[in-house]
Amino acid sequence: MTVLTDQHTAEREAVDAGLRAAASRLPAPAARIAAYHFGWTDAAGEPVQANSGKALRPLLTLLAAKAVGEGDSWRQAVPAAVAVEMVHNFSLIHDDIIDGDGLRRHRPTAWKVYGVNDAILVGDALHALAFEIIAEAGGDRATKGTGLLAQTVRALIEGQLADTRFEGRDHVDLNECIAMSEAKTASLMGCATALGALFGGGTPEQVQALRDFGFRLGLAFQHVDDLLGIWGDPAVTGKAVYSDLRNRKKSLPVTAALGSGHPDAPELAAIFSATRQLTETELRRAAELVEACGGRLASRRSAESLTAAATGSLAAGGLRAEAAEELADLAAGTVGRVW
Amino acid sequence: MTVLTDQHTAEREAVDAGLRAAASRLPAPAARIAAYHFGWTDAAGEPVQANSGKALRPLLTLLAAKAVGEGDSWRQAVPAAVAVEMVHNFSLIHDDIIDGDGLRRHRPTAWKVYGVNDAILVGDALHALAFEIIAEAGGDRATKGTGLLAQTVRALIEGQLADTRFEGRDHVDLNECIAMSEAKTASLMGCATALGALFGGGTPEQVQALRDFGFRLGLAFQHVDDLLGIWGDPAVTGKAVYSDLRNRKKSLPVTAALGSGHPDAPELAAIFSATRQLTETELRRAAELVEACGGRLASRRSAESLTAAATGSLAAGGLRAEAAEELADLAAGTVGRVW
Repeated sequence: MTVLTDQHTAEREAVDAGLRAAASRLPAPAARIAAYHFGWTDAAGEPVQANSGKALRPLLTLLAAKAVGEGDSWRQAVPAAVAVEMVHNFSLIHDDIIDGDGLRRHRPTAWKVYGVNDAILVGDALHALAFEIIAEAGGDRATKGTGLLAQTVRALIEGQLADTRFEGRDHVDLNECIAMSEAKTASLMGCATALGALFGGGTPEQVQALRDFGFRLGLAFQHVDDLLGIWGDPAVTGKAVYSDLRNRKKSLPVTAALGSGHPDAPELAAIFSATRQLTETELRRAAELVEACGGRLASRRSAESLTAAATGSLAAGGLRAEAAEELADLAAGTVGRVW
Repeated sequence: MTVLTDQHTAEREAVDAGLRAAASRLPAPAARIAAYHFGWTDAAGEPVQANSGKALRPLLTLLAAKAVGEGDSWRQAVPAAVAVEMVHNFSLIHDDIIDGDGLRRHRPTAWKVYGVNDAILVGDALHALAFEIIAEAGGDRATKGTGLLAQTVRALIEGQLADTRFEGRDHVDLNECIAMSEAKTASLMGCATALGALFGGGTPEQVQALRDFGFRLGLAFQHVDDLLGIWGDPAVTGKAVYSDLRNRKKSLPVTAALGSGHPDAPELAAIFSATRQLTETELRRAAELVEACGGRLASRRSAESLTAAATGSLAAGGLRAEAAEELADLAAGTVGRVW
C-alpha cells in the first residue's frame, strides 16, 4: 500500500485542495455531510485526520496527464481529477443506501449518520458539482469531458442496476458478471485516465491508450475488491467481514465458483439461494466453497492478467516514459494489495 | 389550462421526441422506469396515453429561443429543453422518495411502483443524461449551459434541504421561505429560459432578460403550487388532498399565515407543532386558519405581482414581440390556473 499513500505528494495535495474548494460551494447542510463522508470531519463537524479513501481515481487522472505533458502541465487536469472523485463519491453515497451498507472506510456511512434523505441529496449535489467543475475548465476539453463523464455515470448506473438484480437471481453467467464489473468499476477508472490525458493536452491516440489502461486496471481492481469482500481483513478494508457474501453479491469469484462445474458448487448455490439471513457458520462455509471451486484463484489470475494487459496499453501513443512507469507501479501496487 | 395543453404543438412534439430519444439510451431497467414516470407506459410497460406532466419548463426554453431568433432557429434549443426536463424529473423522482409522496400526476410515484433503490438510480441516470445532452450540442453554449445547469441543480438541492428542515422547525421566517422557494423552483425556471436564449443564439442581455422572466414566473408558480397543495382539487392536481398540510410543509401561504400576527395564528401554529399524524378535521381546520390569517390572499397577490414583474422583464433586450407575447400568455395561463 506504500505506493498508494506515501508517493505523489504534490498530486495528492492538489486533489485535496481542489476537492475542499469544490465542496465549500455546497449549501451548508450538504457541505457538512460531504466533509464527514470525505473524512475531513467527524459526525460532530470537528476536523479530523480520518482515512479519506485511497483517492486512486484522481491520482490516475493526474498521472495520465503527466504521461502526455511536460513539467507542471498535469495541473491542468486537476479539475478533471476532482470531478472524477466527486462522481466516485456520489456513487458511493448512493450505493451505500441501496446496498444498506452501514460501514465505509472504518466509519458509519453517510446515510447511517445523517439519514437516507440527506444522503440522497448530498450524492446529487456531488454529482452536479462534478459537471460544474468540468465545465469551468472551458473549451473543447470541457465539452468532451462532460460527455465522457455523463456516459460514465450512465455505465455506473447500469452496473449498479445489474448488481442489485444479480443478488435476486439464482444463476448469473460469468460474462454477465464481467460486463457488470466493467460498467460498475472499469468505466470510471477508464474515464479517470482518459480525462487526465484529455485535460493534459494528449493526442486522441494517447487518450485512447490511457483509457484502455484505466479500464483494464479497473476490471483488475474489481477482481481484487471482490476477493477483499470475502477474504479481506475488516481492519484493513474498513468494511464488515464477509459483507459481500452476507448480501449474496454475485461477485466475480462467486460467479466463477458457481459456474465451475466443481462438485462443491451445488452446496455453494444452495447457500446463496437461501432467502433468510446467513449464519456466521454458513458465511465461513461459503467462503471455503468459493475457494474450493476455484473462484479465488480464477479472480486472482484474472486480476494479474488484466494488470499485465493494462500495463501493455501504456506502450501505445508515445507516452512519457517516467509517468508510464509510475502508472505501471500504481497498477502493480493496487492489484498486489491482496496477496 | 388550454394555454398549457392545446397550443405550441410543434414545440411539444419536438420536446417529446427529444425526451424519448434521450431516454432510450438508458440501460433497460432504467428506461422502463423512466417511461413509466414520464407517463409513456403503465407499470406493466404497456404504452399508454397518460398525463405526462405540463412540460412547462421545456416549453419555456423553446419559447425563450423563439424570442431571440427567427424561423426554425428555436429547434437549436431542443437539447436544452430536453436537459431541463430531465433535471426537473430527476429531482421529482428523488423528492418523491424524500417526501414519502406516493402519488404524482394521478399515478403511484416511481418509488412506490419500483422501490426506493431503483428510483434513486433512475433519478441519477436522468441527472447524468441531462448533462450528456447539453454537452452533445457542442461549443461555447454547451460549456456555459453545463455550468448553468449544474449551478441550478445545486440550488434545487439547497431548496430541498431547506424544505425538509423547515418541516421540523416551529418558526420559519417568510424571507427564508421565499429564499427556499427561489432555490427549489424559480432557479430551474430561470435556467430553462436562460438556456433557451443561450441555445437560440441570444445576446447576453437577452439571456439575462429571459432568465429574469423565468425566475420571477417560477416564484409566482411556487405560490400557486403552494395554494394548490392546500386548496387544489386532487382530481386536477394529481396529488393527495391536503398533502402539503399533512407533511407540515412550511409553504409560502402557511408561513405568511403563521407570521401574520393574526389572532388565529397561534391555533395554526399549535396544529403545525403536533408531532402525531393530523386528523382530517385538523387538516380542514388548518386550511381555514391559513385563509383566516391572510395566507391565501398573500400568496395570491404575490403570484400576481410576480407574474406582472416577469412580464415586465420581457421589455428588455429587444425580444421578438410575438414570442414575448406567447411567453406572457403562458405566464398568465400558468399562474391563473388556481382562481
